[in-house]
Amino acid sequence: MKFRKIEGGVTAAKGFSAAGISCGIKKEGKKDLALLYSHRPAAAAGMFTRNRFQAAPVIITRRHLATGSARAIIINSGNANACTGEQGLAAARRMAELAAAPLGLLPEEVLVASTGVIGVPLPLEKIEAGIAVLVGELSPAKGQEAAEAILTTDLVVKTTAYQLEIGGRTVTVGGMCKGSGMVCPNMATMLSFITTDCAITAPLLQKALRHTVNLSYNLITVDGNTSTNDMVLALANGAAGNLRITSENEDYHRFLTVLQRVNTELSQKIVRDGEGATKFLEVTIKNAASFADGKKLAMSVLNSNLVKTAFFGEDANWGRIVAALGQTDVPFDPAKVDVFLEDLQVTARGQGVPFDEAQAAAILARKDIKILIDLHLGEETVTAWGTDLSYEYVRINASYRS
Amino acid sequence: MKFRKIEGGVTAAKGFSAAGISCGIKKEGKKDLALLYSHRPAAAAGMFTRNRFQAAPVIITRRHLATGSARAIIINSGNANACTGEQGLAAARRMAELAAAPLGLLPEEVLVASTGVIGVPLPLEKIEAGIAVLVGELSPAKGQEAAEAILTTDLVVKTTAYQLEIGGRTVTVGGMCKGSGMVCPNMATMLSFITTDCAITAPLLQKALRHTVNLSYNLITVDGNTSTNDMVLALANGAAGNLRITSENEDYHRFLTVLQRVNTELSQKIVRDGEGATKFLEVTIKNAASFADGKKLAMSVLNSNLVKTAFFGEDANWGRIVAALGQTDVPFDPAKVDVFLEDLQVTARGQGVPFDEAQAAAILARKDIKILIDLHLGEETVTAWGTDLSYEYVRINASYRS
Repeated sequence: MKFRKIEGGVTAAKGFSAAGISCGIKKEGKKDLALLYSHRPAAAAGMFTRNRFQAAPVIITRRHLATGSARAIIINSGNANACTGEQGLAAARRMAELAAAPLGLLPEEVLVASTGVIGVPLPLEKIEAGIAVLVGELSPAKGQEAAEAILTTDLVVKTTAYQLEIGGRTVTVGGMCKGSGMVCPNMATMLSFITTDCAITAPLLQKALRHTVNLSYNLITVDGNTSTNDMVLALANGAAGNLRITSENEDYHRFLTVLQRVNTELSQKIVRDGEGATKFLEVTIKNAASFADGKKLAMSVLNSNLVKTAFFGEDANWGRIVAALGQTDVPFDPAKVDVFLEDLQVTARGQGVPFDEAQAAAILARKDIKILIDLHLGEETVTAWGTDLSYEYVRINASYRS
Repeated sequence: MKFRKIEGGVTAAKGFSAAGISCGIKKEGKKDLALLYSHRPAAAAGMFTRNRFQAAPVIITRRHLATGSARAIIINSGNANACTGEQGLAAARRMAELAAAPLGLLPEEVLVASTGVIGVPLPLEKIEAGIAVLVGELSPAKGQEAAEAILTTDLVVKTTAYQLEIGGRTVTVGGMCKGSGMVCPNMATMLSFITTDCAITAPLLQKALRHTVNLSYNLITVDGNTSTNDMVLALANGAAGNLRITSENEDYHRFLTVLQRVNTELSQKIVRDGEGATKFLEVTIKNAASFADGKKLAMSVLNSNLVKTAFFGEDANWGRIVAALGQTDVPFDPAKVDVFLEDLQVTARGQGVPFDEAQAAAILARKDIKILIDLHLGEETVTAWGTDLSYEYVRINASYRS
């Protein structure tokens, strides 16, 4: 399938505007308030954190998504509006109302997202004043500003966009996301916003979103922690003029492919910007009995502090990899397990094999490292992504709140 | 129940000798080979790692324990003899034979333990030469040497001993252990050896060991990793002359109490010596629905890198504590959760409460910190122990194998 990468992010698709400003939640005048707006009615879909503590914006956005449509998303960084009780719910509702009014929308047409510190009341006056400015800033040229305004400990802005022909029309899918720590499968302190001008029904947008999120954001980990605020939202406004996708036909699968590409790329950008990360680790579990088993094993390896520190130290300590595999409840035969670092085999049938230390050192010195684990058991293959664990991770997280 | 702490460790109980020497497995002449010997036949019991990759000494010692009795334990550090295949099993068997011969024992009367790097063949010639020396060194005065010889990244020797009257006789329970990293529930790179002169049957010794291990070693974590080599072994040689404990009578419960004290103290010594640890964290989950639920929640908090780095940074980031609770599959009502740091409440019914930052700072500056989480749900209370995550943890583990 031929799709092509294009410039831009969340406003690359037709009929979307965005803006991002500083309203004073963050220190030092950093951008902390973003607005995303579809000039046309849009099908809307969402995936949310599975953390039992669900932040107020998660609860409110779930409700507003019930209709399967939305026109705008208001997002703040610097404050998670989580563990804030009834007051927090009222604040999230109020954010939607404040954004809806000047845009002539119903509050239910506005989705709300927040990220930042937990348990601190949202400074609503700052947000109210900010929204008044933000609406005037809305522009198809301001996707980058919006992408900056949703960041927390992120070091880089994360956007992408692709185009593909669907039903003879050019369809664009773009997005922006944030996330750097508290990142683990089943989402993370991770917000991602996808926009497309594809015409597609809300149920199929939701289905495509779920499918692609499970193979992207839900297969990454920085530190094994799932946040209270995670969400991936998608808006599809139909401005491309393609025949609306109403069944799982060829058009649907074309859309699914490009959506997967966007979500995979955005999720990997989160890993690459992982707090303190010096390595980008790709773990593939080959010949697992099931997707669930393979995912559990890949995540156990990527979440092991001992594995992570060994990669930070560029140490070919494969014993920690097999120990991480063995401590899950996934059944497999240890005596069949092969482990490769790139093309260098370090474990054969569960035992160490002599390998060239110089070759291992050259592989471990790379920033991107592929780890292949073959269980020789079933037929499922699962790939997941993570980072090493560095001094810098500790430094960043030892002083986040203060 | 009145028991008293006494001097000594693994040779505090009557009828035990020990020795510890360097046989050249470790660099720089550090002690790496230990022998523990009971002068009388002893009931024996063991608890082992649940890692699917089981090291050769784990497999051999399980077999030798089948009789419920043993006379000696041979232990090396510096090499785990794990992921070493048939050759490793032969090496573990050979270690038992080498120790058995000069002591006039059957190989089956000798238990074997190893700890250290995974996947490297055991240097049997060094061990053979070492055992010849070691047997000549055996003495009731050499418990400290043995305790030194089982260490790896540990910074301190870990021993303890207690006495208690049972059936009119003075019974002593002592022990030594090692463990500093790769430490998590269901054991860890953790070896612990308990000796007692109590007369007790092997099945009751096993039952008491299982009970006390589940409330001690299985409730600690340093880094969430379970090793391939963990074991807790207990020898009871009856030298105290008490009426042999053959049922769960009052004597059994007296013995259980002192054994629990020994295992709790040894397991906490492992946490205090946790790699890079600057804090000793005690997490209590109060009013959980079950022990299993409470344990899972306590461990989720103690294994969260975000919680751990926050304590390292002395940051009262209770949001990370509730996020760690919420990401398990344990059902509870977030809106009922209270969190206390020592006597300072930081969360009430799932929401932040204003607290005195100076008081919080004073609590967080301590080395030992108690975290109480009340679910207001059931009637079970579970306490577990762990550490913070520091730069030093990363430094130690980035360069272990090299």
